[in-house]
Amino acid sequence: MAVGEFDLIKRYFDRHKPQQPFNTLGIGDDCALLSIPPDYQLALTTDTMVENVHFFADVNPAWLGHKLLAVNLSDLAAMGAQPFAVTLALTLPRVDEVWLQAFSDGFMSLSSLFQVDLIGGDTTAGPLTLTVQALGLVPKGAALLRSTARAGDLVYVTGPLGNAGLGLKIVQGHTCNRPEQALTSFHLPQPRISQGLALRGVASACIDISDGLAADLGHILEKSGVGASLCWENLPLSAEVQNYVAQTGDWRMPLTAGDDYELCFTVSADSVHKLPANCYCVGQIEAEPGLRITHNGQPESLGVKGFEHFS
Amino acid sequence: MAVGEFDLIKRYFDRHKPQQPFNTLGIGDDCALLSIPPDYQLALTTDTMVENVHFFADVNPAWLGHKLLAVNLSDLAAMGAQPFAVTLALTLPRVDEVWLQAFSDGFMSLSSLFQVDLIGGDTTAGPLTLTVQALGLVPKGAALLRSTARAGDLVYVTGPLGNAGLGLKIVQGHTCNRPEQALTSFHLPQPRISQGLALRGVASACIDISDGLAADLGHILEKSGVGASLCWENLPLSAEVQNYVAQTGDWRMPLTAGDDYELCFTVSADSVHKLPANCYCVGQIEAEPGLRITHNGQPESLGVKGFEHFS
Repeated sequence: MAVGEFDLIKRYFDRHKPQQPFNTLGIGDDCALLSIPPDYQLALTTDTMVENVHFFADVNPAWLGHKLLAVNLSDLAAMGAQPFAVTLALTLPRVDEVWLQAFSDGFMSLSSLFQVDLIGGDTTAGPLTLTVQALGLVPKGAALLRSTARAGDLVYVTGPLGNAGLGLKIVQGHTCNRPEQALTSFHLPQPRISQGLALRGVASACIDISDGLAADLGHILEKSGVGASLCWENLPLSAEVQNYVAQTGDWRMPLTAGDDYELCFTVSADSVHKLPANCYCVGQIEAEPGLRITHNGQPESLGVKGFEHFS
Repeated sequence: MAVGEFDLIKRYFDRHKPQQPFNTLGIGDDCALLSIPPDYQLALTTDTMVENVHFFADVNPAWLGHKLLAVNLSDLAAMGAQPFAVTLALTLPRVDEVWLQAFSDGFMSLSSLFQVDLIGGDTTAGPLTLTVQALGLVPKGAALLRSTARAGDLVYVTGPLGNAGLGLKIVQGHTCNRPEQALTSFHLPQPRISQGLALRGVASACIDISDGLAADLGHILEKSGVGASLCWENLPLSAEVQNYVAQTGDWRMPLTAGDDYELCFTVSADSVHKLPANCYCVGQIEAEPGLRITHNGQPESLGVKGFEHFS
């Protein structure tokens, strides 16, 4: 049975009562209405995913729904914000109810996990293009910025690097004895919300790793007017990524592959004792601009940057 | 000269210093940061426009930039909200600098007119798809909803109907002696922000007319659990739309054509004296559900509803 635009929103996405007291009017009016508590700022981010650019046409739609929301929540995590609401702009070539059921299941189960309300959106016909806007709250002045790293700070990441990059290579045909972790990292990234919250008042700067550590740390360096040195041997790597590097010699992959959605942050030496568990020091911030990398004790050049559209 | 994703945002869209005190961090971090004044609610809306669905591939890109923003601001107007910020998710098949310059000119000049800051967005490669999210402020409890019309209220619109519908027909080949006003209404709709603000505390319910008066008033009726009667002869029509109706017999067009972006609102009889200038009474709200229309004194059926994707 074909469903129209309004039915579609109601059937697949208007499932839950609002879980957050801030969302005072949900789907079904010209706008959503939100009440922001005093002493908080609103953090707001938007990310688009396009078929055959960000995902393959045959991807499991439940994974896609999860990932679309996860990459947006990841931006809130990088800001130290607590997510509370999202909107979804869905451009679909046709109404495929099996696809929509799975996609919305993936999207809504992650939103339930983080108690994020879907408060509005738009549904249009056209090439498959998915845009989420995510909203979070952060106490005034507590947001983690890109522009506030200082020389002498240490550079950390919240988890292993290159798993999602290896996952993509497996999807593209690379063979791996134990592909499960890499594929899960690639298809079902976990936004590091609790880590972002724990870094409020501790980290001096923060970003999420969507385009690879080198490119994303590069944004911190540029915005903060500083440089950094990384030692490759300090990168946290899974056994499978270590195997991949040993097999292929492609040691740059964990630095340049995107989609890990770990946080990269800087912290002053005297705040290191306040860090949450499972953070890994990978380098230090220096006054001299640029990113310097040593591998096997030798200075190396990456040659490539992270993914950039149109570049 | 080709420009990359980050240059593109900076060159075309990061033009102005923030004009609003609420926007404390603009483009260039993981999220935008907004400070919402106490006693206000945030109104939030999103609309997508897709090539060959919402606009023709050869449309003047400056008009497209204007219209994309205007249709989103129109949703804020319908809520009685004061716009202050927008985000833009831009999916582009290629970097066409002439197109981008014109598109961003149209977008940014309307945003300047309403002192709306562009605070963030995303730029991706793919089929031309444009999603805006617009943010506005409304005093707590003052938002104009769809769900609060009451039997006995009068139904008003803020301006003539069918001009944009006639504009579309002209684009599609219909000849008209004086096409300018209709084409301007179609390509360059004006969001009725000042009218929306003036209706706070006056209108009992409000919506913007994006899908045609019949369909959009229908949303008020459904959400409010009421019905309405409209008299066709009360519709405010331009001379060109009157000519079109006389020539073609298509009297339904001003009721069913979309894209006018006037406001449709309801008001109790004892608040009519508080209405702003240039509002036109077109009918009344009744307890009996459904929309009843008389044309030449005869009850008529519309036969068609407004535009709905996938229907």
